[in-house]
Amino acid sequence: MNQKSFIPPHRTLMGPGPSDVSERVLKAMARPTIGHLDPIFIQMMDEIKKLLQYAFQTNNELTFAVSAPGMAGMECCFANLVEPDDKVIIAKNGFFGERMKENVERFGGIPIVIDDDWGNKVDLNKIEEALKEHPDTKIIASVHAETSTGALTDPQSITKLAHDYGCLSIVDTVTGLAGVPLMVDDWNIDAIYSGTQKCLSASPGLSPISFSEAAKEKIKNRKSKVKSWFLDLNLIMSYWEGEGGRSYHHTAPINALYGLHEALLILKEEGLENSWKRHKDNHLLLKQGLEKLNIGFLVNEEDRLPQLNAIYIPEGVNDLETRQKLLNDFNLEIGAGLGVLAGKVWRIGLMGQSSNKINIEHCLSSLSKAI
Amino acid sequence: MNQKSFIPPHRTLMGPGPSDVSERVLKAMARPTIGHLDPIFIQMMDEIKKLLQYAFQTNNELTFAVSAPGMAGMECCFANLVEPDDKVIIAKNGFFGERMKENVERFGGIPIVIDDDWGNKVDLNKIEEALKEHPDTKIIASVHAETSTGALTDPQSITKLAHDYGCLSIVDTVTGLAGVPLMVDDWNIDAIYSGTQKCLSASPGLSPISFSEAAKEKIKNRKSKVKSWFLDLNLIMSYWEGEGGRSYHHTAPINALYGLHEALLILKEEGLENSWKRHKDNHLLLKQGLEKLNIGFLVNEEDRLPQLNAIYIPEGVNDLETRQKLLNDFNLEIGAGLGVLAGKVWRIGLMGQSSNKINIEHCLSSLSKAI
Repeated sequence: MNQKSFIPPHRTLMGPGPSDVSERVLKAMARPTIGHLDPIFIQMMDEIKKLLQYAFQTNNELTFAVSAPGMAGMECCFANLVEPDDKVIIAKNGFFGERMKENVERFGGIPIVIDDDWGNKVDLNKIEEALKEHPDTKIIASVHAETSTGALTDPQSITKLAHDYGCLSIVDTVTGLAGVPLMVDDWNIDAIYSGTQKCLSASPGLSPISFSEAAKEKIKNRKSKVKSWFLDLNLIMSYWEGEGGRSYHHTAPINALYGLHEALLILKEEGLENSWKRHKDNHLLLKQGLEKLNIGFLVNEEDRLPQLNAIYIPEGVNDLETRQKLLNDFNLEIGAGLGVLAGKVWRIGLMGQSSNKINIEHCLSSLSKAI
Repeated sequence: MNQKSFIPPHRTLMGPGPSDVSERVLKAMARPTIGHLDPIFIQMMDEIKKLLQYAFQTNNELTFAVSAPGMAGMECCFANLVEPDDKVIIAKNGFFGERMKENVERFGGIPIVIDDDWGNKVDLNKIEEALKEHPDTKIIASVHAETSTGALTDPQSITKLAHDYGCLSIVDTVTGLAGVPLMVDDWNIDAIYSGTQKCLSASPGLSPISFSEAAKEKIKNRKSKVKSWFLDLNLIMSYWEGEGGRSYHHTAPINALYGLHEALLILKEEGLENSWKRHKDNHLLLKQGLEKLNIGFLVNEEDRLPQLNAIYIPEGVNDLETRQKLLNDFNLEIGAGLGVLAGKVWRIGLMGQSSNKINIEHCLSSLSKAI
């Protein structure tokens, strides 16, 4: 066995995540570890909460980072909000809708999956039809930014529809947060989760999450215990919300949280709207270049996520070999297609720190040489 | 809101964890983030697996790090191994036995709790009586190193008893791994989990874990799906065990894994037996000094964990004020008592990098000034 320290190469990360992590964030993670109950650490956790409230544009008290990757954030929402036999409508237009279905089933709920083609946005009419057919539905779940296709869905309209029919709205914004407009309070979203390794450009391993008062009420009044001790918000609330001292629940990932704190500061310094605009502008720049290479997009122009560009693999070009060449010869990571799109599309991420002109030039010039 | 980078103080960490993280590990975490499906990263994951097999002294194929703190490792064991209506005997002699009970209940099992006083070791006779009373028991769960009391329990004898009665054995070694002798294969343990922030001295956020072939068989043949998608080993197996390419399950905490890799290398360089001996020797040194201060131990000498010293708070000494003084005036963190021991004991950790002579001198001299 190779018994040496691991020295990773310098990659340019333009896949579906992780995105490039800045020197500032890397340095923050290397600061001395202190105790998770140290008053100074707890103060930093309060700052993270406020910074996350800014990123989500919410005043929700229950806003924090789950101590595990984005998929645990998804599970945290479903484990806490779904009770046995609850009907949950899932607006599925990609890979992550399927995972939501798995979550609902495992927690004893009844998933009602409304399918739209991968790469299309969600059809609101179909959701409303399902609501009429199942008036006892409790929750509607949707994906703001489908990482598997690069399609943007409008959580505001879906949430309005959910509330019109007395449902709660769960939104996946793993790839959305900080990359496209999102206003959790204005849009009245009840539960939302994200990841740190996309447009926030922190290292993976944490899942920012936020719950409305209505969601909290449902969780507090559950008839059955949450089928997870680690993710039970009734326990976690006292850890993140407690004043003047927190009860021990689990040991927080201290150094990862240093990194998230720094990444959120960088976002605050830039300003959310500037971040949204930068993602948009750089997407247009990439698009221009791809057009010159005759490469087309999977998603209609008006529904495209600027931070995740699913593009058709040019005819006659070998998928795997090209990606390997990009990685080995140009230190450039782009993403493969997922699920039904495997072998058909590549996913080029322009997320967070990775969304910049130098990366775009590097990507276009490497692509033109590799294909 | 304070909008500055977070610069933590330099603490000496002698509580129940996290322990001091070395410069080598901190630096490793600051190396450039690469993709979680990058072949070079996957190679590092394979090295981590081999290094964990060394630390656990096992050849178990299913040996890896759960992408979340130790409590998620506990949940991973119970979520996967407990099926509805399974009887699980829990040898409880402290705080973490209670958590095991919570886990068993949430996954639909029937916990049979065998209580021993906090600070005592587990009484094998009581376990055997329970087995005779409940011959349909499926699992026995025990805590190798009770972090709440500093008591050592012998997982070898408990596992032998479990197998004599056709049960699997789950062992919590969150605080045990690398601090006291542990031979997973020789002792035939079926499922075991640990944490990174104790005697391994990596940052918190990951949970090393290992499963025997018998445990894997039980998981593969479950009648009901695991009540967690994030922790379902049937899915995770293909992520950590897949050859020549891994299927995407979740995004691994890349930089935290860099840190764990380095921490495991440090352990390998020192050698497991040397690490066990160092923990023992330093415990004796601390004990000598505490005796001079007339401070006594909660646990009988023969059952004490060298890495976690639960000591009685001297009469007339204020618990909270003294710990605050140690933190503020001496940058020294020691642990409070947990549960029924709150206000009665302190917990002094000598774990991993924190187990050294300089720390012990600093601790004894600070304590003598503060009490």
